Amino acid sequence: MAGTGFGLIGTGFMGRAHAIALASVAAVFDDIEAPRAACIADADEESAARAARALRFERACGDWRALVADSAVDVVDVCTPNHLHYEMALAALEAGKHVFCEKPLALTVAEAERLARAAQSAGVVHGVGLNYTTNPMIRTAREIVTSGEIGEVLHFSGRYFEDYMASPEAPFTWRCERRLAGSGALADLGSHLINMMHYLVGRPRVLAADTSTAIRERRRPDGVMQVVENEDVARAFIELESGVPATLEISRIATGRKCGLAFDLFGTRGALRFDQERMNELELFTGGEAPGRAGYRTLLAGPAHGDYARFCPAPGHGLGINDLKVIEMHDFIRAVERGERFYPDFDEGLAVQRVMQAIEDAAAEHCRVTLDWTAETS
Amino acid sequence: MAGTGFGLIGTGFMGRAHAIALASVAAVFDDIEAPRAACIADADEESAARAARALRFERACGDWRALVADSAVDVVDVCTPNHLHYEMALAALEAGKHVFCEKPLALTVAEAERLARAAQSAGVVHGVGLNYTTNPMIRTAREIVTSGEIGEVLHFSGRYFEDYMASPEAPFTWRCERRLAGSGALADLGSHLINMMHYLVGRPRVLAADTSTAIRERRRPDGVMQVVENEDVARAFIELESGVPATLEISRIATGRKCGLAFDLFGTRGALRFDQERMNELELFTGGEAPGRAGYRTLLAGPAHGDYARFCPAPGHGLGINDLKVIEMHDFIRAVERGERFYPDFDEGLAVQRVMQAIEDAAAEHCRVTLDWTAETS
Amino acid sequence: MAGTGFGLIGTGFMGRAHAIALASVAAVFDDIEAPRAACIADADEESAARAARALRFERACGDWRALVADSAVDVVDVCTPNHLHYEMALAALEAGKHVFCEKPLALTVAEAERLARAAQSAGVVHGVGLNYTTNPMIRTAREIVTSGEIGEVLHFSGRYFEDYMASPEAPFTWRCERRLAGSGALADLGSHLINMMHYLVGRPRVLAADTSTAIRERRRPDGVMQVVENEDVARAFIELESGVPATLEISRIATGRKCGLAFDLFGTRGALRFDQERMNELELFTGGEAPGRAGYRTLLAGPAHGDYARFCPAPGHGLGINDLKVIEMHDFIRAVERGERFYPDFDEGLAVQRVMQAIEDAAAEHCRVTLDWTAETS
Amino acid sequence: MAGTGFGLIGTGFMGRAHAIALASVAAVFDDIEAPRAACIADADEESAARAARALRFERACGDWRALVADSAVDVVDVCTPNHLHYEMALAALEAGKHVFCEKPLALTVAEAERLARAAQSAGVVHGVGLNYTTNPMIRTAREIVTSGEIGEVLHFSGRYFEDYMASPEAPFTWRCERRLAGSGALADLGSHLINMMHYLVGRPRVLAADTSTAIRERRRPDGVMQVVENEDVARAFIELESGVPATLEISRIATGRKCGLAFDLFGTRGALRFDQERMNELELFTGGEAPGRAGYRTLLAGPAHGDYARFCPAPGHGLGINDLKVIEMHDFIRAVERGERFYPDFDEGLAVQRVMQAIEDAAAEHCRVTLDWTAETS
Repeated sequence: MAGTGFGLIGTGFMGRAHAIALASVAAVFDDIEAPRAACIADADEESAARAARALRFERACGDWRALVADSAVDVVDVCTPNHLHYEMALAALEAGKHVFCEKPLALTVAEAERLARAAQSAGVVHGVGLNYTTNPMIRTAREIVTSGEIGEVLHFSGRYFEDYMASPEAPFTWRCERRLAGSGALADLGSHLINMMHYLVGRPRVLAADTSTAIRERRRPDGVMQVVENEDVARAFIELESGVPATLEISRIATGRKCGLAFDLFGTRGALRFDQERMNELELFTGGEAPGRAGYRTLLAGPAHGDYARFCPAPGHGLGINDLKVIEMHDFIRAVERGERFYPDFDEGLAVQRVMQAIEDAAAEHCRVTLDWTAETS
Repeated sequence: MAGTGFGLIGTGFMGRAHAIALASVAAVFDDIEAPRAACIADADEESAARAARALRFERACGDWRALVADSAVDVVDVCTPNHLHYEMALAALEAGKHVFCEKPLALTVAEAERLARAAQSAGVVHGVGLNYTTNPMIRTAREIVTSGEIGEVLHFSGRYFEDYMASPEAPFTWRCERRLAGSGALADLGSHLINMMHYLVGRPRVLAADTSTAIRERRRPDGVMQVVENEDVARAFIELESGVPATLEISRIATGRKCGLAFDLFGTRGALRFDQERMNELELFTGGEAPGRAGYRTLLAGPAHGDYARFCPAPGHGLGINDLKVIEMHDFIRAVERGERFYPDFDEGLAVQRVMQAIEDAAAEHCRVTLDWTAETS
Repeated sequence: MAGTGFGLIGTGFMGRAHAIALASVAAVFDDIEAPRAACIADADEESAARAARALRFERACGDWRALVADSAVDVVDVCTPNHLHYEMALAALEAGKHVFCEKPLALTVAEAERLARAAQSAGVVHGVGLNYTTNPMIRTAREIVTSGEIGEVLHFSGRYFEDYMASPEAPFTWRCERRLAGSGALADLGSHLINMMHYLVGRPRVLAADTSTAIRERRRPDGVMQVVENEDVARAFIELESGVPATLEISRIATGRKCGLAFDLFGTRGALRFDQERMNELELFTGGEAPGRAGYRTLLAGPAHGDYARFCPAPGHGLGINDLKVIEMHDFIRAVERGERFYPDFDEGLAVQRVMQAIEDAAAEHCRVTLDWTAETS
Repeated sequence: MAGTGFGLIGTGFMGRAHAIALASVAAVFDDIEAPRAACIADADEESAARAARALRFERACGDWRALVADSAVDVVDVCTPNHLHYEMALAALEAGKHVFCEKPLALTVAEAERLARAAQSAGVVHGVGLNYTTNPMIRTAREIVTSGEIGEVLHFSGRYFEDYMASPEAPFTWRCERRLAGSGALADLGSHLINMMHYLVGRPRVLAADTSTAIRERRRPDGVMQVVENEDVARAFIELESGVPATLEISRIATGRKCGLAFDLFGTRGALRFDQERMNELELFTGGEAPGRAGYRTLLAGPAHGDYARFCPAPGHGLGINDLKVIEMHDFIRAVERGERFYPDFDEGLAVQRVMQAIEDAAAEHCRVTLDWTAETS
């Protein structure tokens, strides 16, 4: 049987990460057929051809619509800038393809809703690239939370700090424009943190929020100063559906932080602490120890955690970010092969988008926003 | 010349810490006269006498009013539970004594205002025990911020996490009662964090906030369950007078955290990171390094930082929490000897109380609260 | 042009890691042709066929000699247990193949010498799997040392602590037998640490050493206790050719350590600190900072370090152990394509073996052993 | 009853630390009488008088022999440079005084032996200032080792790294001269590390060692270069009396390290890790956890550890180096009051000196040295 055929649109950071994962996933996981790197599309024929050679794809297209139409393509894998996700994913669904789309799923709730509905109608497998939850240590964290090892959840405090826009000299780019990027730090970073919260402790019932743009103007490549249209910092106080308080704080101007997706999760009998910059470590505190013997312990990634053993039989040797993409790719291919659902899917992509929108609304109106999840498809 | 005479009210945790500082301050700092441990007061004669013997005070009183009246007492040092601060500090001011009062200064803004006015009228030295800012590493942090070493401040994110009420089995105590404690985590922990923010980045102009009580009832010693009257968790989004965003998150149910007063402070050219559980370390990030050579560095406390050299000439040997009380005591005695102001004084105590009140108001009304500092005495 | 054809012998931990690297190397690095997974050999036809399916090899052999003879195989990649390295690598060299051999190169200096000579005569590319030095942070460490950023080297202190034999209940395996494993912790772990020392600070001139076996007998699968024939702990004091002191400490009974290859490297103007358990971090201390501003800083892996940018354009996202194998594989393929030397090659494999032997000799005789490198081929 | 009268000789770093401890010890510990700061001696009357005022001593002497003769002095506390310890401690013992002497006890084994014998004959209380073992976390470490919580001890690996001589520009001082300092890093730092090893895992039976002087000449204040007479780096491989291997590595040229007294202690069922630069933390690994739940945990100093509760009832607030001197002072005063032995006493001071000598001998002769403890007095 031939493996799943991938059609990759986009050859930037994420496109390359997907191509690397595609190449190695079947050597890592033996429970799937080796996928085929069927087609890759880029802005024009030449750059697509160059990418096909570099990333070992069978075919190159200068037009993404040709890729969507290609019968060798089973999965359309959307790795383009944010504002193109909607149109491409929709076209792929309409062509009856399975769709994997990088985050954020769309620029607006309306777009995300339409995609989620279309995905449901199409009856295909759909997924969003919120890959941090594939980390074996995060899967372990979920296991610890859901099994009750740390008791009832009392409080979730999450942060995502990066510094890619911290310098006032960082130029004005598409990321600063509403029309192309949607929100700012919220879309880039917040989407991951919201998904992490959903995955570990559930969805918001009500929230208050605040956004701010510290560096109001940035210089365009042509030297002109232009007003930044979206936020540098976003913050939300959340009451989860469970009643538990959650805090989100997100910044793209956090000088010195490179991938600071971090959280504290406090329970009645224990706690967890995590920082993506040390993605192979999960800190666990458990009560009930002898006096003077309690403390946060560092669980170092090993074969007992999630899919780590697929990569390495020895503990402590460390996975990297691209390995998380391999796990994600594996889970998606397995879902396609077995006709199962994939998580996080477009419904989760929509849920994340709705929380992002609620944060923007609450911040704009200085009021609390209530989220109603009863109409959800899932 | 005889040293400054101290009258200490209260013999608990803080009372003992003050007594220890009183005993050693003049051996550490040679620029003040050795203070006298003139009088100690406790609930009754017997326990006061026992404390006087243990803590080496010259005289013991079963009645704090006698201590206030004692002519050997120059400074009344209030180390009692929160609800007694107001009455005692006021009586001491009215008796013309210098007053040092443990935090929080009072239970309400009205009380704090009256104390701040009385202190001003009395023309004495006044201080509040917000001791974390005496830490040599915090003084270094302030130096770094004010000198511009990390550029313009962009964002302050502060947390104070402890777990003394994290267990649902932790009993109902005076700390759970409005009448005796005022607010909950906010008064115990938040007061320190607010002072830290003031000290490093300034005062709030407007804020939104949220409080929650995760464990709604606790068992009294007599076995009856009683409703907890104040918050376990408090959070605030702040816009500072400078326009910079600040976030505060405070919890007394943060399982596994023992003294987690921590912050990130991001500037345009660098950043600081601190956690009181590692009080001898300050992390500093500076931009402008060669490619691949930038990173958070750990400044380990040493003679180049604040008053460290008074305690030890060698770096890296470590100060402890009681050393911070020694610095505080020294600064207060020096202010008394020289007739200077002490920081943090009752004005700062009042400012902290006003921010605490604004947080409670904003949380209760789900609205933003604006603070007006123009009428301030200082 | 067809890519380099790999013949992989061995399908365990290392075999799988090589297969994963082989699959993804050309998607990561675009300066080489995609290699071919030409042939895989295992103990019998059936397990080889199973491995070929799982790891996507074109052909399977039940006999490794057939693989060596296969004209589609350009590189023989030896991933078998230690005692088989010699025979296989030698046969491959005699067949004129390029050879990559996992560490340790051989069981004895005599074997390693014969291999190094045969490799030189064969005029092929040869390499040993001492992969920790491919880490972008280690390449950065070398850059820092050789550029003089930390001044003259004063002292190297290295450790490699793991706990795979720490439990007295850990069974007797081939690793405990001289005939099959050679030395114990020294071969498994010490070989990496010695190579790290060579790479960063050079070779030993004279050394004293000590080995000990803490758990003298272990239980065989058949229940019989058997005497362990090699060491649990090895230690050496070294004077390097440069005159600088170096210390090595190696243990396979270091309870709680999973991949504790760590070192301190002190120079006259700075220092480095590294621990493989946090392989994405390198700590750098530099003198010459303003008073109170010096400290170890954590360089977090990013595009400025070694080959990191090939994997990810964003800093702080983290590489994993398998990525190090990808770099190693790339460097080897590039050497094959260009007819260049690869490092670490069989000469380095021999040099490591000679240091291991010197440590064993010095420990056995309780005397200092002098190493003479003048006769070296390289 | 009047408290124990202290006569302090020496007003440098250690003298001041003792004076601070003397002032506060009775406020911290209520089971002893408050000691009296009876007399302080310095090189001349004037500087002694100045020190007496600063450090609040009752009397000042320009001649230490007058202090020894002073009937108000019960304890002679020797805080002078190393080469004066012997003469002063001996005179004090001959005068029938209790003696506390800073480390190292003496410059040679012969001197230390004579002091240990004199102390025994005098029937007084005697102690050596090896204060790191008073740390509540070290006392907890000992508890964990002796109770068997981590099983049988397998391996001790200790280091003491500081950088006070790391710069080639650091001048020639008395510390570089045999006659005044005895050995170099070994006396300054090694004495502490040896005592730590004795305290936690016992005494050496046989050892090999190596010393080296990286910076061979240093500049005197008068500008002349002078040959350094003692070692910058010392290392020893030890077989303990229990048969367990121990490693010591000591350096005064460890750039960037300020107080790096650190160890790993591995047992069959767990392990400990400690670094004095984070003196309020002890890392504990315990086996027997559920799969994926084992890891080093950080015990943060609190009331459950050693004497911490005397200083603070709340965990995580941190002790400092001077608090360790307070514990040491308390233990010594209590021993004097009760006529009990103090640990570490002159016998331990001698034992440390003997190990230091064995290290020097083994290093000079490049041979193993066996230590015989059977003739010991204790």
